[in-house]
Amino acid sequence: MATIIVPENVSIHEDAENLQKACKGWGTDEKAIINILGHRNAIQRKQIRQTYEELYQEDLIKRLESELSGDLEKAVYRWILDPVDRDAVLANVAIKKAETEFPVIIELSCIYSPEELLAVRRAYQSRYKRSLEEDVAAHTTGDLRKFLVGLVTTYRYDGPEINERLAKSEADILHEAIKDKIFNHEEVIRILTTRSKAQLKASFNRYRDEHGTSITKKLLKDESNVLQKALHAAIRCIDDPKKYYEKVLRNAIKRSGTDEDALTRVIVTRAEKDLKDLKELYYERNSVALDDAVSKETTGDYKKFLLTLLGKED
Amino acid sequence: MATIIVPENVSIHEDAENLQKACKGWGTDEKAIINILGHRNAIQRKQIRQTYEELYQEDLIKRLESELSGDLEKAVYRWILDPVDRDAVLANVAIKKAETEFPVIIELSCIYSPEELLAVRRAYQSRYKRSLEEDVAAHTTGDLRKFLVGLVTTYRYDGPEINERLAKSEADILHEAIKDKIFNHEEVIRILTTRSKAQLKASFNRYRDEHGTSITKKLLKDESNVLQKALHAAIRCIDDPKKYYEKVLRNAIKRSGTDEDALTRVIVTRAEKDLKDLKELYYERNSVALDDAVSKETTGDYKKFLLTLLGKED
Repeated sequence: MATIIVPENVSIHEDAENLQKACKGWGTDEKAIINILGHRNAIQRKQIRQTYEELYQEDLIKRLESELSGDLEKAVYRWILDPVDRDAVLANVAIKKAETEFPVIIELSCIYSPEELLAVRRAYQSRYKRSLEEDVAAHTTGDLRKFLVGLVTTYRYDGPEINERLAKSEADILHEAIKDKIFNHEEVIRILTTRSKAQLKASFNRYRDEHGTSITKKLLKDESNVLQKALHAAIRCIDDPKKYYEKVLRNAIKRSGTDEDALTRVIVTRAEKDLKDLKELYYERNSVALDDAVSKETTGDYKKFLLTLLGKED
Repeated sequence: MATIIVPENVSIHEDAENLQKACKGWGTDEKAIINILGHRNAIQRKQIRQTYEELYQEDLIKRLESELSGDLEKAVYRWILDPVDRDAVLANVAIKKAETEFPVIIELSCIYSPEELLAVRRAYQSRYKRSLEEDVAAHTTGDLRKFLVGLVTTYRYDGPEINERLAKSEADILHEAIKDKIFNHEEVIRILTTRSKAQLKASFNRYRDEHGTSITKKLLKDESNVLQKALHAAIRCIDDPKKYYEKVLRNAIKRSGTDEDALTRVIVTRAEKDLKDLKELYYERNSVALDDAVSKETTGDYKKFLLTLLGKED
């Protein structure tokens, strides 16, 4: 479930006017911006952008970029974009930074539905005039490239059908490869990048039943190279996205020097989807409310914005 | 341009009735079936299937399969399906036969537009409950798998923009790899499976300009392994689909023992697209009309059906 609180009566026209007031003249009224945008859903934010453009012949996104700065600017920018555009931007930033594990790419390919991934690929093309796989491939090499390009180009079958015999044989293939530490095994990459999520979950279950331990636990031990880390992340994303995101949040918060990019990414991308469930899971796992943890680790308007998205009442 | 001749006034209802008459009782009136279906476009054929089903509570495709046989059955079956379903079937047949070079897969990925390829991937999933890439990956191995899976999963950028600097650097990469006969070069596969067609054509042109010979000519010499053949076919499909198809037709006809599958495939899949152009090209290249060549190499109702699709007047 979502966390953001949207008032019953929203006037898009007034929102646009109030945003213009918040940006006008010297100084910026960050709180007003947060109070408006942090309480509007994706469709309303899009309408606000359109109305703002009609009223003031100015791109609201560009204006906000010039008015805000730092982590708040990044977070508001990601929030105000259409979700598919935001994901395209997140992917592009990850590719350009040449991240070591490319969590964004793995999340897109292993958590999003095949249709959602496709929508992001379309958005990426219309924004950057190149394909997503083209850029992933051009910015990575070796085994990691093979795996990430395979993930990002897949259009998995999305049905519930499971082939139990296949689950057994592919669980065995995965087990053999992991046991022998051949992480770049051609078959491992083939299985993880092409099989449907339902089929993969069946294989992971089979692995657990036959070998007495989960495939992720087995992979975690001696996690030394980037490919292994990427495999581990992909399997966790497919197996249990909520547990995966909870851990991203936990790591982002617990790290000495908070990982604002990861924190922003999870909160912004999940606030209209399942952030409420992630909050519950976070509390179960850490005995601390996510709001309180975020509150402790962040400051100023950035903190206020994240807490607004987390559904904290003003 | 298309070749099939569709009369101005078509009664779908009468078509369905006449097809039922052609199938009824002992013996089948193949000529009637060919005369109707060979002169109807994709939308009309779909309407005929629907009307037939409503009138006779029977699937026309299944009925025709039981009434016809051999090459005619295959050709009519491919023709009567929706184009995307037909391509899904062609791909599936190729995968199951474990063809050596998988021309169907290469044609889908390198000739069809990114949206058309995607439509075939969707049709494949709804027909086979698995993804196309899943089946390609499971039925191939090694370098050929890498290349074909890369091709079939790509969603190329479809815009006209060209990066000239990139065309030069990637033409050089291709040249180095081909010169050294490292056909499974990671970069060659990356370039051919991810770049837009416009960009790839610019690279091929650059190759020709800088090295005095076309990349396909260079690849053709000493064409010894399957990967090399697949690379060669993919480049030809991207560079000039019509020339590619003309050669498929020529090889299918000139082979001792005609290659009916290839002949049917090209004629059925291109009859409503550019078969007229292919006929012109065939004549230019062979000084024989394609109709005459087909007429000489095939027999009976199968011959009649192909000639009908080729636009021969009755």
